[in-house]
Amino acid sequence: MPEYLKLQSLNDSKQLFWQHLADLRPGIEEIDSRNALGRVIAEDICSNEFLPAFTRSTVDGYAVQAASTHGASDSLPAYLDLVGEVPMGTETTLVIQSGQTALIHTGGMLPPGADAVVMMEQTQTAANDVIEVLKPVTSGENLVLKGEDVKPGEVVIPTGTLVRAAEIGGLLALGILRVKVTKKPRVAILSSGDEVILPEQTPQPGQVRDINSDMLSALVKANGGISQTHPILPDQKDVLQQAIRKAYDDSDLVIVTAGSSASTRDMTSEVLNSMGSPGVLVHGINIKPGKPTILAVCDGKPMIGLPGNPVSALVIAHLIVKPLLERMTGFTHHNLVPVVTADLAVNLPSIAGRDEYFPVRLYRQDDHFIADPIFYKSNLIYSLVRADGLVHIEPDSTGLIAGTIVEVTLF
Amino acid sequence: MPEYLKLQSLNDSKQLFWQHLADLRPGIEEIDSRNALGRVIAEDICSNEFLPAFTRSTVDGYAVQAASTHGASDSLPAYLDLVGEVPMGTETTLVIQSGQTALIHTGGMLPPGADAVVMMEQTQTAANDVIEVLKPVTSGENLVLKGEDVKPGEVVIPTGTLVRAAEIGGLLALGILRVKVTKKPRVAILSSGDEVILPEQTPQPGQVRDINSDMLSALVKANGGISQTHPILPDQKDVLQQAIRKAYDDSDLVIVTAGSSASTRDMTSEVLNSMGSPGVLVHGINIKPGKPTILAVCDGKPMIGLPGNPVSALVIAHLIVKPLLERMTGFTHHNLVPVVTADLAVNLPSIAGRDEYFPVRLYRQDDHFIADPIFYKSNLIYSLVRADGLVHIEPDSTGLIAGTIVEVTLF
Repeated sequence: MPEYLKLQSLNDSKQLFWQHLADLRPGIEEIDSRNALGRVIAEDICSNEFLPAFTRSTVDGYAVQAASTHGASDSLPAYLDLVGEVPMGTETTLVIQSGQTALIHTGGMLPPGADAVVMMEQTQTAANDVIEVLKPVTSGENLVLKGEDVKPGEVVIPTGTLVRAAEIGGLLALGILRVKVTKKPRVAILSSGDEVILPEQTPQPGQVRDINSDMLSALVKANGGISQTHPILPDQKDVLQQAIRKAYDDSDLVIVTAGSSASTRDMTSEVLNSMGSPGVLVHGINIKPGKPTILAVCDGKPMIGLPGNPVSALVIAHLIVKPLLERMTGFTHHNLVPVVTADLAVNLPSIAGRDEYFPVRLYRQDDHFIADPIFYKSNLIYSLVRADGLVHIEPDSTGLIAGTIVEVTLF
Repeated sequence: MPEYLKLQSLNDSKQLFWQHLADLRPGIEEIDSRNALGRVIAEDICSNEFLPAFTRSTVDGYAVQAASTHGASDSLPAYLDLVGEVPMGTETTLVIQSGQTALIHTGGMLPPGADAVVMMEQTQTAANDVIEVLKPVTSGENLVLKGEDVKPGEVVIPTGTLVRAAEIGGLLALGILRVKVTKKPRVAILSSGDEVILPEQTPQPGQVRDINSDMLSALVKANGGISQTHPILPDQKDVLQQAIRKAYDDSDLVIVTAGSSASTRDMTSEVLNSMGSPGVLVHGINIKPGKPTILAVCDGKPMIGLPGNPVSALVIAHLIVKPLLERMTGFTHHNLVPVVTADLAVNLPSIAGRDEYFPVRLYRQDDHFIADPIFYKSNLIYSLVRADGLVHIEPDSTGLIAGTIVEVTLF
């Protein structure tokens, strides 16, 4: 009977895998900044400009020389001559002298001579062209200064940053319309198994539809990769060898979901091992679900054998393929895994000595969440359809009791 | 000087807005299940099939009649006649009688006559064609039964479910290749302001590049909507009126980022109010940043006026536009806001009486996160570029002290 080479812990497996993988970024491409959402910056971005480009008012009010307002109070206002209104969107011809003021709107350019703005609420109109200032301001008050956000030469977005809406805003604010990002990793996805048919086909007795290809493809796309799916492979070593070699040549990462019998898994491992050096690093992880996982690095390229069981395949994809894709895109701020804290609804027994991941459904109760574990048998995909995320039970635990506060890693 | 009509709390504002909005789903379309990632199911999905379609083994082992193993032990095994191997992917011609067994692989179809599987590890090969069973099994052991995951007629995915990788797997497992989803909401995005120019242009004194249109466009796309951007509008009521009316007619949601002066904001409010009944519901929210927000419902259609200040606009988009888009897609499981729990790095003072949202950057320290607030002045977009999420300070608080455990809502 075939044995696993040696079961390794999830953490050890991932460490070993990462250790053998150097810079995995599949190259750089330049794209429109407006289309960069979800991409990862590949070269430090520097500013050529000041932002803001001029000193602006942050309030509606009156531009002044701060000194003109010193000592002003409700009972003894400073009286300033209103010399005009600062126009929006164009340079003003006004120059503010001592004892003078001009109406200015939020975002308006501070006119020469002025060094502060008095908020509208702290003024009164005394007579035609005279403004009463009821409170003093200090120099710089109610202003953002030229270059206060960004100065020329400053690195504004470092390599490895994920582009979100804010980064698109930051780029366009500086007139940076094109940006260099990491190319999307190409991920080859292969399913094998004599019993496996296309979802389009009607299963005959003993046959099952392949769902791993399309589930993994969705996960790859959702995490910034390009998925390359392949025809279903029979459990024949030479066919597997040829197909995986071709996939290896045409992609940056190869994922094979093996037929589910032990002999088929071993065949997959042998084929992956033959693709390059050092070959298979992990054959069997001490985890439930997902034990029959294979991790290989072949001449610098990562290859993963996932269990044929779709529940196991999808859980391992979340735990290993997602962080791998992050590394491949060069994303450096990758420790932000979104979790929801919840109360465990019922006791959750676990076998000590291995990592366990339980799918849970979350319900809101008043101001907190309840995590309701989904007890399931192997291979039932609808146990994941009902689940919002996973609860991890450490290897040294024999389970969690109801009411324990758990962190649910969201799918 | 123009006044806000009445500042309302964020919660009251949202409640009022939702109350005036009935079913906002912009219709239903049928698409390929494989392309449904991120879409929302628009009609309950029922199964026409059993899943699994046949009773399958969950292990590598031997198919038996459980009764044939009763009383078996290491010292007194049950001896069973090996009558063959269950093939993968096709119906077997084997029938298991009492005292007989057949080799079966994980996922293999249970042959007629058998009602359980003995794990390989609990057997030994005694002689040619005789298997020793070392432990008894009960009927049903190591099997998933036909229909145990799904039975015909069962609602497998209810209306309002967000399609993730697992749902694509669930659909394809049942041969459901097309699926009805909510149409993507069309969101018109308009920017106004005499000082505002396109990002392609070089700002002259007093001018600033429009970044709100593209930031909001990215946020809309990331949250399942179709963004419709428009040319930048001048601060002229008739032009604004005409452009907003056209946008209203062609979209499911209108977002206007107003010029930043009080008079321009009032003009925007007047125009939004004129589009239909009941018109403007909220003009000014008791929040920082984002006070000059306008919420309107015009003949059933939502309209939002966002502050021109891009920091305020993006924060309010996260707090109001995102949940609105969820409602528009019919997503019903919308209370899962991903948060990261962190220790606050420094004191965070706040003014009591209003909701405050502080941008923070997260750092990992050992096994927990530190939330480092980004103190910023109005309007500096790079304060959000550096931020990972927001920390909320309730209106009844005057701030949080360093070391407080805070929940950071991720962008």
